[in-house]
Amino acid sequence: MKIILDAMGGDNAPGSVVRGALDAARAFEDITVVLVGREEAVKQELAGQAYDQSRIEIVPADEVIGMCDSPAAAIRKKKDSSMVVGMNLLSRGEGEIFISAGNTGALVTGGTLIVRRIDGVKRPAIATQLPTRTGSVLLVDAGANADCKPSYLAQFGVMGSVYMQKVMDVGEPKVGLVNIGGEEEKGSMLTQAAYGLMKESPVKFVGNAEGRDLLSGNFDVIVCDGFTGNIILKFLEGTAGVIMGTLKESILKSAMSKVGALFMKSAFRDLKKKFDYTEYGGALLLGLRGGVMKAHGSSDAKAIASAVKMARKFIVGGVVTAIGESIERAGDFGEEEEAQ
Amino acid sequence: MKIILDAMGGDNAPGSVVRGALDAARAFEDITVVLVGREEAVKQELAGQAYDQSRIEIVPADEVIGMCDSPAAAIRKKKDSSMVVGMNLLSRGEGEIFISAGNTGALVTGGTLIVRRIDGVKRPAIATQLPTRTGSVLLVDAGANADCKPSYLAQFGVMGSVYMQKVMDVGEPKVGLVNIGGEEEKGSMLTQAAYGLMKESPVKFVGNAEGRDLLSGNFDVIVCDGFTGNIILKFLEGTAGVIMGTLKESILKSAMSKVGALFMKSAFRDLKKKFDYTEYGGALLLGLRGGVMKAHGSSDAKAIASAVKMARKFIVGGVVTAIGESIERAGDFGEEEEAQ
Repeated sequence: MKIILDAMGGDNAPGSVVRGALDAARAFEDITVVLVGREEAVKQELAGQAYDQSRIEIVPADEVIGMCDSPAAAIRKKKDSSMVVGMNLLSRGEGEIFISAGNTGALVTGGTLIVRRIDGVKRPAIATQLPTRTGSVLLVDAGANADCKPSYLAQFGVMGSVYMQKVMDVGEPKVGLVNIGGEEEKGSMLTQAAYGLMKESPVKFVGNAEGRDLLSGNFDVIVCDGFTGNIILKFLEGTAGVIMGTLKESILKSAMSKVGALFMKSAFRDLKKKFDYTEYGGALLLGLRGGVMKAHGSSDAKAIASAVKMARKFIVGGVVTAIGESIERAGDFGEEEEAQ
Repeated sequence: MKIILDAMGGDNAPGSVVRGALDAARAFEDITVVLVGREEAVKQELAGQAYDQSRIEIVPADEVIGMCDSPAAAIRKKKDSSMVVGMNLLSRGEGEIFISAGNTGALVTGGTLIVRRIDGVKRPAIATQLPTRTGSVLLVDAGANADCKPSYLAQFGVMGSVYMQKVMDVGEPKVGLVNIGGEEEKGSMLTQAAYGLMKESPVKFVGNAEGRDLLSGNFDVIVCDGFTGNIILKFLEGTAGVIMGTLKESILKSAMSKVGALFMKSAFRDLKKKFDYTEYGGALLLGLRGGVMKAHGSSDAKAIASAVKMARKFIVGGVVTAIGESIERAGDFGEEEEAQ
């Protein structure tokens, strides 16, 4: 199994990427890691580290796509960037998955243009795990498509369901539609139409998921357009921050509480862990002819190692093939497929 | 000042509504409270209570609109319901604001059909306050309009800005557009177009508000379509629940933490207070020819009293007139007003 890594992507590249890759390669002897990026810089990070040289490859790429680069222009013009070179390797079959902590927009654009969609997939979607009371839930789409048609949402449900089966070992994933109100006729024009399609689709559709139930543990997959999904994803980060901040302020106000806080340390640690992206690996771009994974921009070595571990499960589970089969079985949901 | 209350609305009606109304009437001698509902039931709740009879009126209404009634049908058919009777009083000028803890959809429908829109207002919107690090932020629209046009969003900004000035005493409210990404060209087709309109509108528009910044305190008003707003509102409730639940579980796991929890009680109390809807009164339906306020369905007497207090500020501030003036000044944002 070959896992291709964008050595130059993210705030802590290439150091964290290289160290995380080495950690993962030590943990799993059945993987080979391909580091794509500035050869000099990558070699410097490798120097002095102990590792199995037969399973660490370097593919040079001299350019870097920055966080502020315009996605379409960057993919078109920076042909020798680590991202473009890495995705070209993937599309030629010289690896099964590509991981980057870099520019999300460029990754989505490159995924569509270089890796390309599976036949029948209307739009690739970002799938990301959120913590729930009892485990986690997969949010699809977390931001790739700001404007969606009902058939896209129905396909997101199909793809998310395959992912949870193959990667998270959920037998029959419960799929919910993010909506306002519980009944079929509630919601926007988009969600009303999507409800009808999802009801008929080959997944275990369990109905609408209202805002307050998204993290309830009642769903394994929650489906929405990428605008709503991105707001949910980032709002969760913001809210967790405000709640923790409020608790901390209250604690500082009272000497009593300060003593209490010492006792509470382990509880806070558990909470932080639950909302810690490093535990969840990365977000997947589903619907492409190869695995494309987005790691968090501020990934440290541990987060990269988690991402590689999850990427390995993605390959072992045969997710790309399984999505292709499921999408074919699901049909086109009554809408013509469009060129993009 | 006359404040009309739906005595039959909400989970704890009429008891909590009546008691909350009496508490508010005791606190503010310049208000008269009109209780609309089943006379017998309301009188029973009033029996044995000490209050100024000249400032508590009862208007009988024998029907009740339930939480599961279809909004449009209920408003059309239940002519003698507390909600329809109350809004008719408001539209005839026999009161300045109507408060209900009942069916939100019916309140929105009745607001549009009975109270009617201010000239030039395209859609009324639900405005509700969310807690931030430093205070609160007004979310508009929190759920009245699942599908919006760009001009609606621009108007929501204008109306929200007036509300924060007149009711919350914010001199020059900072208005943000809920969006994915910080730059003008980011987002859905709706938000891209709304950005352009809001930039030119007579409010202090400070740009996009991303999910993680909604509660940062950087904004006084955040504007979005009612689908997104409702997801945000309810997701906040759900997330606060998951975070508190996680902390409690961790605490129960460890005896050490259990001791700590005793010390932490006041910090938890502060946190709960911050996320407690009873502190925030109610949500306003902005854009109508009279005040229409939605109190939380599970309002207790304290929550109703808070709602009445906020309603009083709404009247004193002359919000309805001020919105009419601001909407006229803002123009129609280049779109024809449509009949609804």
